[in-house]
Amino acid sequence: MIPKGFFFSGISAGVKKNGKNDLGLVLFEKEVISAGLYTKNRVKSPSVTYTKRVIEKNYPGALLVVSGNANACVKDGMADIKTIVSALGSKLKIDPEKISFASTGVIGVKMPVNIIKASFENLIDNLKKDDFREFSSAIQTTDAFEKVSHRSFKTDDKKINILVLGKGAGMIAPDMATMLVFIFTDANISKDLLSSALKSAVDNSFNIISVDGDTSTNDMVLAFASGLAGNKLIDKKDENFKIFSENLSSACLDVAKLIVKDGEGATKIIKFILHGAKDRKSALKILKTVANSQLVKTAFYGCDPNWGRIMAGIGRSGVIIKEDKIDIDIAGMPVVRNGVEVKGFSEKKLKEKMKDDEVTVTINLNSGKESAVFYTSDLTTDYVKINSAYRT
Amino acid sequence: MIPKGFFFSGISAGVKKNGKNDLGLVLFEKEVISAGLYTKNRVKSPSVTYTKRVIEKNYPGALLVVSGNANACVKDGMADIKTIVSALGSKLKIDPEKISFASTGVIGVKMPVNIIKASFENLIDNLKKDDFREFSSAIQTTDAFEKVSHRSFKTDDKKINILVLGKGAGMIAPDMATMLVFIFTDANISKDLLSSALKSAVDNSFNIISVDGDTSTNDMVLAFASGLAGNKLIDKKDENFKIFSENLSSACLDVAKLIVKDGEGATKIIKFILHGAKDRKSALKILKTVANSQLVKTAFYGCDPNWGRIMAGIGRSGVIIKEDKIDIDIAGMPVVRNGVEVKGFSEKKLKEKMKDDEVTVTINLNSGKESAVFYTSDLTTDYVKINSAYRT
Repeated sequence: MIPKGFFFSGISAGVKKNGKNDLGLVLFEKEVISAGLYTKNRVKSPSVTYTKRVIEKNYPGALLVVSGNANACVKDGMADIKTIVSALGSKLKIDPEKISFASTGVIGVKMPVNIIKASFENLIDNLKKDDFREFSSAIQTTDAFEKVSHRSFKTDDKKINILVLGKGAGMIAPDMATMLVFIFTDANISKDLLSSALKSAVDNSFNIISVDGDTSTNDMVLAFASGLAGNKLIDKKDENFKIFSENLSSACLDVAKLIVKDGEGATKIIKFILHGAKDRKSALKILKTVANSQLVKTAFYGCDPNWGRIMAGIGRSGVIIKEDKIDIDIAGMPVVRNGVEVKGFSEKKLKEKMKDDEVTVTINLNSGKESAVFYTSDLTTDYVKINSAYRT
Repeated sequence: MIPKGFFFSGISAGVKKNGKNDLGLVLFEKEVISAGLYTKNRVKSPSVTYTKRVIEKNYPGALLVVSGNANACVKDGMADIKTIVSALGSKLKIDPEKISFASTGVIGVKMPVNIIKASFENLIDNLKKDDFREFSSAIQTTDAFEKVSHRSFKTDDKKINILVLGKGAGMIAPDMATMLVFIFTDANISKDLLSSALKSAVDNSFNIISVDGDTSTNDMVLAFASGLAGNKLIDKKDENFKIFSENLSSACLDVAKLIVKDGEGATKIIKFILHGAKDRKSALKILKTVANSQLVKTAFYGCDPNWGRIMAGIGRSGVIIKEDKIDIDIAGMPVVRNGVEVKGFSEKKLKEKMKDDEVTVTINLNSGKESAVFYTSDLTTDYVKINSAYRT
């Protein structure tokens, strides 16, 4: 299950005030093939800028993650990273330019560089081949639980493992919102095809979830491939690539759904399926508008079958639609046909069904052949409580 | 104060279950000049489609408003309107095609046409020249208080009155979200110039407020001018037009701010001022992204000076910005300069200041000469409570 070629460690260095793990390290047995996708927010942590360069130019040798401090909107954030990776590089005897670096937490507070440096010996001492749990807990901030998924499968009779570790709860939106995801695999794969599989996996997982429509300064998804599975190099889009790619996508979707489930204060996942759109772009535009609507999200929290809010969301998405062609089902029950309420639809029965942990909303525009899926969580009083006092 | 030429009435017809006023009528002493702006939501109540035609084609003779039922996403919504205005027209002895009609409330439930028709006698009996309060209360739904503003001023020694009555709380966003606003004036003004003044007033009031980013199926702002002030016809953009236009804008801004203040569950108004933008469009794009951010809104509810969320909002708006040029002041205190926290800034002191009823956030991009203003409310646990059980 754990891919070959990776050593994991996680400790409490004191970046977080609550004594929880806040420093994570993964050391690579050999230099790895890597790929990454990054936040599109124009206000970016230097951690993102820095690591993008490591992934693009080098074969990384290690990954260091700090949680509890975003290293964003601070003076000399880049210089601080360089001090940190230099110190770690000399301890690990690897080129500091081969160390990927990620950070997450409060914005605008300077990194406690000395505290971090002072913890490296302890961090390195705790490296383990078969246990990623301390690392996994070290990348969390407001998460209620850890997000882990893995796949094992065979190509050419060689067993390949993929491990996906994620961090994120709240502030998640399409295009890489506050979220860190690290993917480790022992597949033998070219950089180009790892990038291609990653892009497709992220488009079908982290880019179709949303907790509150905000995106952050620090998000990244990184994939590292050690090649130690010993399979024949995957360097073209053949059957083996397809198997790898599908497994990567489905493991990423697991973690994406866990992130939605852990949406701050969330009580349920809402899965939106849209059929009958003209193209995928407009399908996603509609789904994002509906799924990010505070009124839709609060209605689901209250198990209130207020389908009018879904209709209003569809109408204001900017996509041209025909109101009298729209069908909506909630939790498998037909609610709207041709833009109006289904006769005899039982609000009481539907309210009961909406109490489930996962509720599916199916919308059919009946205006085309394209479909799309989107996941979100409900908006609850607990969300507001958690987020009204995060910094202070 | 009350413009000449209007008779107001409001009663409880039984559309709302709670016995509050739900039917409002304004009868015009003579046919009036009118102008209107309407929701851009593609899912529209036939009330919007119907009234747009009345305003465009006719000189309206009356305005009927139903609250408690949106008349949206229902079968035969247009036919129901025609039945209603026909009945009212014959009672009032005016052409039914000259009756403007607005509705607000729950979506997807058929209008109780008979209940409404049965109340017309009572409604007409209650028409009053000097008291708009019953009408004003009849247009409210979840509003905690009524929204009224007025202006009296002189052009050519003739006194002109403007009265603005609004409805709206929650679901308010730029481009006419769930909101009804009716403007009555006795100014003598041409249709073109009334339209022009209305457009400009709405751009600087209702289009720069936001409660939760949703927009609705039923919103409209209608202006009616009786001409009975007896001023020289305003038919060009001269000084008199300017006076009229400025008074209309400022009265509309009053009502817009009252709507924000009444944002469901809101405890405060947040006023965002943006300086140093390249153009007004990008200035508004940034302000809308920041002001609609759930994380920004919850932080203000908690009086939490989490300026990183403002920075992240600026960064994800889609506008190209220079992070290291951004300055932010909150409640008059410098918090961010050149993209980083101001040294020695007192979080504790700012927390105190953020407890005010209205908090101003000033952002300077230092990248241009354009400015813009935007108002929003905070996001509170009460918002979620109110909206999780609206329909059932």
